[in-house]
Amino acid sequence: MSEPVDPVALTAALVRCPSVTPEEGGALVLLERLLSDAGFECARVDRGGVSNLFARWGLRGANRSFGFNGHTDVVPVGDAAAWTHDPFGAVVVDGWMYGRGTTDMKSGVAAFAAAAVDFVRETPPDGAVILTITGDEEGASVDGTVALLDWMAQHGERMTHCLVGEPTCPNEMGEMMKIGRRGSMTAHISATGVQGHSAYPHRAKNPMTALVSLLARLEDKPLDAGSDHFDASTLAITTIDCGNPATNVIPARGTATVNIRFNDLHSGASLSRWLQDHAQAVAGETGVRLDLKLQISGESFLTPPGEFSALVAKAVATETGRVPVASTSGGTSDARFVKDHCPVVEFGLVGRTMHQVDERVEVAQIHQLKTIYTRILRDYFA
Amino acid sequence: MSEPVDPVALTAALVRCPSVTPEEGGALVLLERLLSDAGFECARVDRGGVSNLFARWGLRGANRSFGFNGHTDVVPVGDAAAWTHDPFGAVVVDGWMYGRGTTDMKSGVAAFAAAAVDFVRETPPDGAVILTITGDEEGASVDGTVALLDWMAQHGERMTHCLVGEPTCPNEMGEMMKIGRRGSMTAHISATGVQGHSAYPHRAKNPMTALVSLLARLEDKPLDAGSDHFDASTLAITTIDCGNPATNVIPARGTATVNIRFNDLHSGASLSRWLQDHAQAVAGETGVRLDLKLQISGESFLTPPGEFSALVAKAVATETGRVPVASTSGGTSDARFVKDHCPVVEFGLVGRTMHQVDERVEVAQIHQLKTIYTRILRDYFA
Repeated sequence: MSEPVDPVALTAALVRCPSVTPEEGGALVLLERLLSDAGFECARVDRGGVSNLFARWGLRGANRSFGFNGHTDVVPVGDAAAWTHDPFGAVVVDGWMYGRGTTDMKSGVAAFAAAAVDFVRETPPDGAVILTITGDEEGASVDGTVALLDWMAQHGERMTHCLVGEPTCPNEMGEMMKIGRRGSMTAHISATGVQGHSAYPHRAKNPMTALVSLLARLEDKPLDAGSDHFDASTLAITTIDCGNPATNVIPARGTATVNIRFNDLHSGASLSRWLQDHAQAVAGETGVRLDLKLQISGESFLTPPGEFSALVAKAVATETGRVPVASTSGGTSDARFVKDHCPVVEFGLVGRTMHQVDERVEVAQIHQLKTIYTRILRDYFA
Repeated sequence: MSEPVDPVALTAALVRCPSVTPEEGGALVLLERLLSDAGFECARVDRGGVSNLFARWGLRGANRSFGFNGHTDVVPVGDAAAWTHDPFGAVVVDGWMYGRGTTDMKSGVAAFAAAAVDFVRETPPDGAVILTITGDEEGASVDGTVALLDWMAQHGERMTHCLVGEPTCPNEMGEMMKIGRRGSMTAHISATGVQGHSAYPHRAKNPMTALVSLLARLEDKPLDAGSDHFDASTLAITTIDCGNPATNVIPARGTATVNIRFNDLHSGASLSRWLQDHAQAVAGETGVRLDLKLQISGESFLTPPGEFSALVAKAVATETGRVPVASTSGGTSDARFVKDHCPVVEFGLVGRTMHQVDERVEVAQIHQLKTIYTRILRDYFA
């Protein structure tokens, strides 16, 4: 009989693989070996210079097929000199493991891989367990989970439910799970007017005046006050630029960027219309041409609270003593792709230090996370 | 007997000197040679990295000493690719000469230099003709005409009347002269907030939101509707900058610049208070720190209509058939400094394309301007 998989040792081994997007860094190779040895059928799904791993234990197309989704790619180290410990060293000090990806999300991948391997070995379920692990979550995300889901559709592979192991808890282990996400879109606004002398503004058409007028209107009222399962939508001006050094010249061109996070009261299409309508009004009033390049990174989505989220919540509550809030807050994650395939819920550990210098994870939480994932598998197949 | 000086050839030669402020670009060197050869006493008055030229024909401290004032520096080219012709090429097409400074104001300088040289050679007057030509009118203007006037005071040089050769006609040659100017001030606004994630704007303090709010208030209502001798005051946003490339990050800092041209209903001090009050209100509402650096380049001023303005108006009317309106419209000019030295009037050609891409001058107007300046000299010394 094999020893149980230690999720802390596995996290450390993964952290030591320098898998900054889009580098595979050895992380998927390591997981593929572990999962193959445990009887998982594995396939590398590589697309567009990105490596991804599909692994299934049990029969293809089983009636109950539980999925875990995660990523091994990490964001860059940033200021390497500012780190207390080697960002790829997985050094443990006072119960905390330091390193890029320790929370986001090599510990999550290690916990669900360890849980899955032990679970199928100890109590082989009547169904399948599927792991989809991508190397392109922190990047463009076009050749990662999307590539895996495309490949699965082509090969008759399916999950009946899926859990994404991203960090979901703001401060305390177990306090939050995610059942959806707001959508996100970015408007790149370019204003083209007519250059002129500052002393004769009526002879010029000032693109900055048009941008200020448009942005003031966009920020005039909140987009909404939130909905049943969602926080209020938000809008943020992320930059305005012109670069005109001359105080006596009205410039010909300026740009601005606005990022919108929106709930289920809006869609990318409705907001695009709203932006275009305001831009058209301002253009009409000022004579300045306003061009909008709109990028919708994801629509809002929701896995309505139900049997599946209740199962996850119960497992978390049993292991941590906390009933997790079912939230839709935060940025985007690959759950936005998985939701088109099957019901999806996200649960992971505390993500407070993700993307920061000295990213670190409490070692005890990795063990706890494996236990929670194991209980979810057990309850799911019970 | 020498040939008369061709003001068009002289304009072209000056346009080919790339004298973007504060570069001398060869323009003053060229004029100094022309004037010295014609018997003018010349002095280069260089201060603070700026070059200026003083030139006098006749005796120092003469009872009648007519002055011309102008500048050879030019504003930057802007989008060079958008020009139809080389901005420093002085290309003539269909009777128009193209180039930066063709209207503002190398043609004006060429016309009065040509008029002065020919006039003193043909009909040596009982008095002096003084030319003050600066290389710092489009810039900070602190080491330009001011330096020349300081130098003149120190050296016992004086003008009894002065004509500034800036373009003064909005559309038709001869329709307008200037007997005063609005004041000008610039506010450099710096906004410092708190950086954060675009998805959580309530946790950040967005400096761009504060800037948009402040600028929208400043542009909300006209400053006034004009006064007896003055047009309405104007306000122009000349730039807004941030340089944040990340659409998921709210920046910590942004800047904006506003230029105000104000009539005698305001002063630099009253407008400074108005700006500070609005900034304080926005800072209070947004929590963003707003720092204002205020530069008052000139208060408004007026040379009341009288004998000198009548002489200029008559010369213009005789040569063009149009009686020029005595206006105080437009931007600042170095007349705001000269007015502390002696009565000053401004007259020049049509400035419609100044500071724009494809700045250009009608070649015939350069000849006409020289003729007008010649008549002013003749009538002045008659």
